[in-house]
Amino acid sequence: MTRDLTLLTDLYQLTMMDGYLKSGKEQDVAVFDLFYRRNKVISYSVAAGLEQALEYVRNIHFEEEDVQYLRSLGLFDEKFLEYLKTFRFNGDIYAVPEGTVVFPEEPIVTVRAALPEAQFIETALLNIINHQTLIASKSAKVAYAAKGDSVMEFGLRRAQGPDAGIYGARASVIGGCRSTSNVLAGKMFGIPVSGTHAHSWVMNFPSEYEAFRAYAKMYPDACLLLVDTYDTLGSGVPNAIRVFRELRAEGHEPKGIRLDSGDLAYLSKCARKMLDEAGFPDAIICASGDLDEYLINSLKNQGARIDLWGVGTKLITSADMPALGGVYKLSALTPKGGKEIPKIKLSDNSDKITNPAFKQVYRIYDKKTGKAEADLIALRSERFDESQPLTIFHPKDTWKTITFTDYRMRPLLEKVVEGGKPVKPLPPLSKICAYAEEEKESFWDEYKRPDNPHVYKVDLSKELYEVKNNMISRIRENHG
Amino acid sequence: MTRDLTLLTDLYQLTMMDGYLKSGKEQDVAVFDLFYRRNKVISYSVAAGLEQALEYVRNIHFEEEDVQYLRSLGLFDEKFLEYLKTFRFNGDIYAVPEGTVVFPEEPIVTVRAALPEAQFIETALLNIINHQTLIASKSAKVAYAAKGDSVMEFGLRRAQGPDAGIYGARASVIGGCRSTSNVLAGKMFGIPVSGTHAHSWVMNFPSEYEAFRAYAKMYPDACLLLVDTYDTLGSGVPNAIRVFRELRAEGHEPKGIRLDSGDLAYLSKCARKMLDEAGFPDAIICASGDLDEYLINSLKNQGARIDLWGVGTKLITSADMPALGGVYKLSALTPKGGKEIPKIKLSDNSDKITNPAFKQVYRIYDKKTGKAEADLIALRSERFDESQPLTIFHPKDTWKTITFTDYRMRPLLEKVVEGGKPVKPLPPLSKICAYAEEEKESFWDEYKRPDNPHVYKVDLSKELYEVKNNMISRIRENHG
Repeated sequence: MTRDLTLLTDLYQLTMMDGYLKSGKEQDVAVFDLFYRRNKVISYSVAAGLEQALEYVRNIHFEEEDVQYLRSLGLFDEKFLEYLKTFRFNGDIYAVPEGTVVFPEEPIVTVRAALPEAQFIETALLNIINHQTLIASKSAKVAYAAKGDSVMEFGLRRAQGPDAGIYGARASVIGGCRSTSNVLAGKMFGIPVSGTHAHSWVMNFPSEYEAFRAYAKMYPDACLLLVDTYDTLGSGVPNAIRVFRELRAEGHEPKGIRLDSGDLAYLSKCARKMLDEAGFPDAIICASGDLDEYLINSLKNQGARIDLWGVGTKLITSADMPALGGVYKLSALTPKGGKEIPKIKLSDNSDKITNPAFKQVYRIYDKKTGKAEADLIALRSERFDESQPLTIFHPKDTWKTITFTDYRMRPLLEKVVEGGKPVKPLPPLSKICAYAEEEKESFWDEYKRPDNPHVYKVDLSKELYEVKNNMISRIRENHG
Repeated sequence: MTRDLTLLTDLYQLTMMDGYLKSGKEQDVAVFDLFYRRNKVISYSVAAGLEQALEYVRNIHFEEEDVQYLRSLGLFDEKFLEYLKTFRFNGDIYAVPEGTVVFPEEPIVTVRAALPEAQFIETALLNIINHQTLIASKSAKVAYAAKGDSVMEFGLRRAQGPDAGIYGARASVIGGCRSTSNVLAGKMFGIPVSGTHAHSWVMNFPSEYEAFRAYAKMYPDACLLLVDTYDTLGSGVPNAIRVFRELRAEGHEPKGIRLDSGDLAYLSKCARKMLDEAGFPDAIICASGDLDEYLINSLKNQGARIDLWGVGTKLITSADMPALGGVYKLSALTPKGGKEIPKIKLSDNSDKITNPAFKQVYRIYDKKTGKAEADLIALRSERFDESQPLTIFHPKDTWKTITFTDYRMRPLLEKVVEGGKPVKPLPPLSKICAYAEEEKESFWDEYKRPDNPHVYKVDLSKELYEVKNNMISRIRENHG
């Protein structure tokens, strides 16, 4: 289902491209980093969306009707429109694999390409990576709160349009959900699909019992009944038990019940007791209804007897932070025939100053525990001699010296596109999910808890720190 | 760009359809209402998304590969899969026109169709209408705060996937934005596109002045310069003025400047003074950067000198309420060969009890002022004799009697699909936008203010109120 999304861009990308051509910068080589900034809600993220971003990049081409449309705007001359007709992305892209745990300031994607090409892909790259990384990260938090229980993604009807439902489902399973209700996402990505029945099913039969009976007849071995249409404990659970007994008499074991409203802690405990006393200790209790990581955590703390979680609106929209806020910033420029010059964007707000230069991100692991200790953003040209101790510098903290007897370093950014061509096939979704599980496992729980998580250290290498500070001083002298 | 979104549905819609077939309910006729419930954030909404929803409905068909995929799930028998191969939507759809101002509990769309057909389209209908109505409503609030200034939609890079950007741009102009940065949305819907240049443009030239100069050369008559890359008042505005003077000497008038960071109230006042003193009182000041209706309102109150607003993330994601929460509830059922029976969904929470029966929504206008006074949800079978006074009942309020000498009534729901076929062509986007402006004008400001808006009355007709109350009593007796 490849759509032509070439024009999925901001108008100013095209006016700037035109300008770069007119200013003789067409063959300058630019490096842009895609990253997000620290904020109150997010402690860590799970990178996602690379596959769709690269699909977009590979497919970039202006159809005749696109060129005609652009001509109709009266903003572009024929030379530029002619240039667009053969425009393709021919640059290099570096990215962390999907499923990688990432932190603020770290490049998730780095693009190194001719300036107009690198500029053009900004908007779509941000759109796709921002969205999927946002939802994968939310999903990771929800799955963490569920402490090993399965979580089903149920949010399609509340997603911000079809793509938000489709790619949101994909991102949800990267983050840790086990299945989705979204059939199209199931078909497109091979995600397990799940679902039972709605309240309208119950309302369409003369009685709740008859509705349950009809459902049980269809799915005798996967019978999960929604018990809150009229009165959960007064009629829903008793009617479910009646049908479960009939099923058992016919040689089938029921799957369980679903609660979708009311006090889920109280109702689940009562329902558990009723099911146990009726001889159905293995019937599961599934809960849904405005759930998120905070509510799941609270229900767990209250001793709710819930085995399976259906999470919708708040996951598929990342309701408490509906945008990751990822940005795409110029970090280096090589003028045609010249040397690479690092670039920086200043701001009154020191948190918004960018990290200059073409970079790599390293994760440092404690060899004994296997856990990640800190990340290091370094110049790509830096070489680390593993026979020597390494001093990590953290601007807001102290220095720390580590040795590679006890620690190991892993570069996170991999080259995925070279000269416009994929370097190697991307992993299938199942592998991405397994890798994401390993990634999350490699961090201490303290970084993952929902309230006041410990702040993971992301350091700058000494060399990068010096390049950055020198640039800041120089610009402040010139413009201050 | 019609995509095949047939499978954009929750799995349980298919299992329920299968069940309705197996239970002999295939030819029962169901009425479902799509509406949203009252919540803290929303006072009114602007309906949007109908065009895309109907496009989806019209295009429903299961391809052979869809059927194969569903077969692979092992949930469906061949009889049902065979049924899907010729499945189409052949029912009726009633909807308020796009751009209509709507309130909680009011059906935005009512579907009357064979039960499996009405059930099947639930998820995609909700997805599309929920999303676009959400964004159109947010946009209406942003445009209201801008008090007649133009607002540009700038959020594509932060939208939740491509569709959220594309259809979010469409919904934004229905709500009141005048243009979008999104080129694809511009091409698809004929929305005016706008944009200038980014910080990276400035960083790609040896100096800010040279960057401005290069941009002015390209767009001498539409020169809007971004002045906050290094130091807004220290270098940005002075460099812009220098270039504006050169432009004027060459016979062109500049458009103005854009501020994207810092204290927009303070910076805009200083920049205005600098531009005025330099002889450019007509150069406009555009502002962007994390704006929403609250911040625009606050900037207006502080006397900020901003003429044009670029609104991104918080509009395109409706950040303070990223889901409308629209639902799709069964309100009536006609068993094959029988009479229509109203249906109701109860809940412990009285706000969640649905309104039964096949309904119409009437808006009551004061003939003198032309303003909307209240809405009335009534049975579709009710007839109002305009020679008689009408008593409006509001459950939480008193009764009010009006006469049609002073008031007029307008039905909001129109039949848009009959027997699966469109009744008439839908209006083009420009007409929808003009209609939405009239709609918003027909409400007193008290309903539209951002803080503590007056609650608009949505009444139930006496007949509907009685039907509803009788049903509640009866069910509580049976299930209580």
